[in-house]
Amino acid sequence: MRVLGIDPGLNACGWGVIAVEGPRLAHVASGTVRPKGADLGARLVALHDGLTEVVAAHAPAAAAVEATFATANGASTLKLGQARGIAMLVPARAGLVVGEYAPNAVKKAVVGAGHAAKDQIGYMVRLQLPGADPDGADAADALAVAICHALHLRASARATA
Amino acid sequence: MRVLGIDPGLNACGWGVIAVEGPRLAHVASGTVRPKGADLGARLVALHDGLTEVVAAHAPAAAAVEATFATANGASTLKLGQARGIAMLVPARAGLVVGEYAPNAVKKAVVGAGHAAKDQIGYMVRLQLPGADPDGADAADALAVAICHALHLRASARATA
Repeated sequence: MRVLGIDPGLNACGWGVIAVEGPRLAHVASGTVRPKGADLGARLVALHDGLTEVVAAHAPAAAAVEATFATANGASTLKLGQARGIAMLVPARAGLVVGEYAPNAVKKAVVGAGHAAKDQIGYMVRLQLPGADPDGADAADALAVAICHALHLRASARATA
Repeated sequence: MRVLGIDPGLNACGWGVIAVEGPRLAHVASGTVRPKGADLGARLVALHDGLTEVVAAHAPAAAAVEATFATANGASTLKLGQARGIAMLVPARAGLVVGEYAPNAVKKAVVGAGHAAKDQIGYMVRLQLPGADPDGADAADALAVAICHALHLRASARATA
């Protein structure tokens, strides 16, 4: 089963796809969608089209988005919300139930602690997914979201077995 | 030319279409998309599909979205941002440049004052668009956004003529 993780953002939206093969997790692909230009509508379309290509190319069976918290800066929160709306819409339109994980839950799943530095996540993602070479912190975070979702899906499958 | 106005929201998203015929504005249609259910992804899809139907049915040549400001409540701002992302995406995907107007600018265009009560907007929208019967405050606000955008487009057309 393939799992898609997304770290939403309006300037840089990371994505990562992993394969769950029994007890093993394997890297499939990752990248960053970087919408350009001043027009917000056009940037949202670029984000939408970029993520739609990812879903079409890798056909994930499950997806999750990092549920970044609201910041003290309302304008940033609103922008992030817009990017998150698109990040959730694309896999939902493909028929997937989209999971949401708080940053601390993602860090805990990948690093083992809720408070981890950005570069620690990249290090642990490369360690757990041999061959993974995310093109930046956003793509590494997205792979971490995918790992977190895969572990949760496995745990809930065990719980209901 | 038809102008679409949208008042974004995750529970109730108002929309209104008006026709600009020379110096006159005429009502075409309005309504409210009400995404249901607990799953955020499914609600975003319902909002997307509802607005996509509106664009397909009324083929607007211009569109604008109310640029609601961030509130003190970060969680509400994030939700609103998600709805706004979808509200901007749909007309932008149809090839339209999407205008944005702050609530005060919309009120000023329709009521003549930046601080107007909700029911005053509904009253003035009905007065300026004979036959309009918005199904609630969100649809009335959306028609007000469309009026505001039409007046701005007319003013900028005059300025460049």
